[in-house]
Amino acid sequence: MSAAQSSLRSVSGPIAVVGATGAVGRETLAILASRHVPAEHVLALASPRSAGSRVPYGDGTVIVRELSEPLLHSARVAIFTATSDIARRLARPAAGAGVVVIDNSSALRHEADVPLVVPEINAHELSASTRLVANPNCSTILLLMALEPLRRRWGVERIDVSTYQAVSGAGAAGIDELLRLTRVSLEPASADEHHAPRVFHEPCAFNVFSHNSAVDVSSGLNAEEVKIIRETRRIWNLPTLSIAPTCVRVPVIRAHAESVLVTLREPAAEASVREAIAAFPGLRLVDDRAHNRFPTSRAATGEDDVLVGRIRPDPSETIDNPPGQAGFRRYQLFLAGDQIRKGAALNAVQIAEKLIELGAISRD
Amino acid sequence: MSAAQSSLRSVSGPIAVVGATGAVGRETLAILASRHVPAEHVLALASPRSAGSRVPYGDGTVIVRELSEPLLHSARVAIFTATSDIARRLARPAAGAGVVVIDNSSALRHEADVPLVVPEINAHELSASTRLVANPNCSTILLLMALEPLRRRWGVERIDVSTYQAVSGAGAAGIDELLRLTRVSLEPASADEHHAPRVFHEPCAFNVFSHNSAVDVSSGLNAEEVKIIRETRRIWNLPTLSIAPTCVRVPVIRAHAESVLVTLREPAAEASVREAIAAFPGLRLVDDRAHNRFPTSRAATGEDDVLVGRIRPDPSETIDNPPGQAGFRRYQLFLAGDQIRKGAALNAVQIAEKLIELGAISRD
Repeated sequence: MSAAQSSLRSVSGPIAVVGATGAVGRETLAILASRHVPAEHVLALASPRSAGSRVPYGDGTVIVRELSEPLLHSARVAIFTATSDIARRLARPAAGAGVVVIDNSSALRHEADVPLVVPEINAHELSASTRLVANPNCSTILLLMALEPLRRRWGVERIDVSTYQAVSGAGAAGIDELLRLTRVSLEPASADEHHAPRVFHEPCAFNVFSHNSAVDVSSGLNAEEVKIIRETRRIWNLPTLSIAPTCVRVPVIRAHAESVLVTLREPAAEASVREAIAAFPGLRLVDDRAHNRFPTSRAATGEDDVLVGRIRPDPSETIDNPPGQAGFRRYQLFLAGDQIRKGAALNAVQIAEKLIELGAISRD
Repeated sequence: MSAAQSSLRSVSGPIAVVGATGAVGRETLAILASRHVPAEHVLALASPRSAGSRVPYGDGTVIVRELSEPLLHSARVAIFTATSDIARRLARPAAGAGVVVIDNSSALRHEADVPLVVPEINAHELSASTRLVANPNCSTILLLMALEPLRRRWGVERIDVSTYQAVSGAGAAGIDELLRLTRVSLEPASADEHHAPRVFHEPCAFNVFSHNSAVDVSSGLNAEEVKIIRETRRIWNLPTLSIAPTCVRVPVIRAHAESVLVTLREPAAEASVREAIAAFPGLRLVDDRAHNRFPTSRAATGEDDVLVGRIRPDPSETIDNPPGQAGFRRYQLFLAGDQIRKGAALNAVQIAEKLIELGAISRD
């Protein structure tokens, strides 16, 4: 990472963070600071409402400035952590003005000329002439990180996944609501109106509920599930891959977990699957059966790595059969990853680092 | 239910609850009280430690008496809500002494002469001569309730399920730990030792972690997953049914949720699947796509019904195809049910009511 750190430090112009006061914006600033990007190279941009306030930057702070096209166009690279509307309005003009734009929203994820990138998986879609890159959906990034080593070696035929998604997917407001409603729930005497949810459609404290994105009335899929299907197919360039996702919110602050059943194209030995995951950059194997230590939302919080464990062949292939079968095509696993870091801010910063390496973003 | 209520009121002898001070024991007492069983017909039995204390019974209380064989054998029917050890030691002698025993533990669930029963599914395994009945695992009961109407009409070939299990599965101590650790988590200044888990192997507040039951080092399955596989196969009398479960704890107090992908033997139309679930006793369809209203842990808490929704064909069969296909073999759904009620106490009481109807438990 030291090369990457120094590469960001030496970008020949400001690094803008659009939406700097949000959960992903703040995390992006924290990662830039940890990469030793000097505060004076950072443009923290946000709505007029936040302009003039300060946000944490390393041990200090940086001032938030009002998002405007002239200011944005003065940047060498801009990481957008704002809404799809803002991306739709400002990303292409900025790219046209010579800014390299990496967008966290879903606005550009299916534009033919905008690569959708997880650097460990498809950095080959970036080049020296790249000006616009889309950052995938958080659940998709974490899922594909865990499965990429398997896809490379054995191929993937089908994915079944059920998610355990943190409230931070709805930003800082989601986190505030979880903490507020949890406090209220612990005081049984509190008035009914204090229990009313504002961010989510269901009370999130001590509750599990279907993902808050809109549900397509015809297919029954919610928008988060559609993202997992479409983005996985695009990132892997497998346009007909079978994926059956179920996206669910849980009362967790900022790490998503996912229960995955993957069907491989070729049979794989269990030890080989475990080794492939352990060896893949950005993954950490946490798979201690004897002590019941596996990935948890808490352990993944604040971490760069995606934690992967509970790796086992589908029991329907093993439970009735004598041990010793050489390989299996269906594997189950459980993963946990920080939704704000690898699920968003870190992945965007890694894309920027790759673009510096490729010369798309010039250095001093 | 009025017939059932009166049938329990007229049992010709005491109704014992073994383990009356535990979470399931207390809920069993609450259900007996709601069925208008007079307090003087109830024997609340527990360890010597609890003897002499009182537990809630309807608007009043009943005294807890020390569990002893003479007292237990004075009962006409005994609902065991204690450990497997206690069931192994006391259930068969009690049955031999003429007590009808319904056991909530896993001790007897695979004894050839003990039926494993969910009344809505396999009440036909009960008879006038039944003396011992095992109550299935909570996750299994909720899962099979939701799938039974599909199995009856189209057959079930395979089940993939990921659970979202409440801490109440570890009893009242699990609930206490969640509330305690959540309070501590909300006070960042609290000392480290206050954050240490005692009941679970991981901190449960704002966390998702693999189920706390022991993991088989060879298969990688935890004991909860093995229960789902073995008990489903037994209850449905499908000894080779393919089931791939992943059991996970979430910070929820007392209702389990489950994300299910079921593969049917015969194709089914989506409307027919929904109608079959809506018509099945003990299920409540909660499936409002337009308003994003689906089963939640909170909505299921304290309810007798298992809530079922998010019913949709596997998108890998629909997303690339024009609409109008007549039927599908793979369906996804999401369910939530009270782990202590239908997952334990209510199912046991319903077994007792069925046994009264069959004459296995005599009335006055």
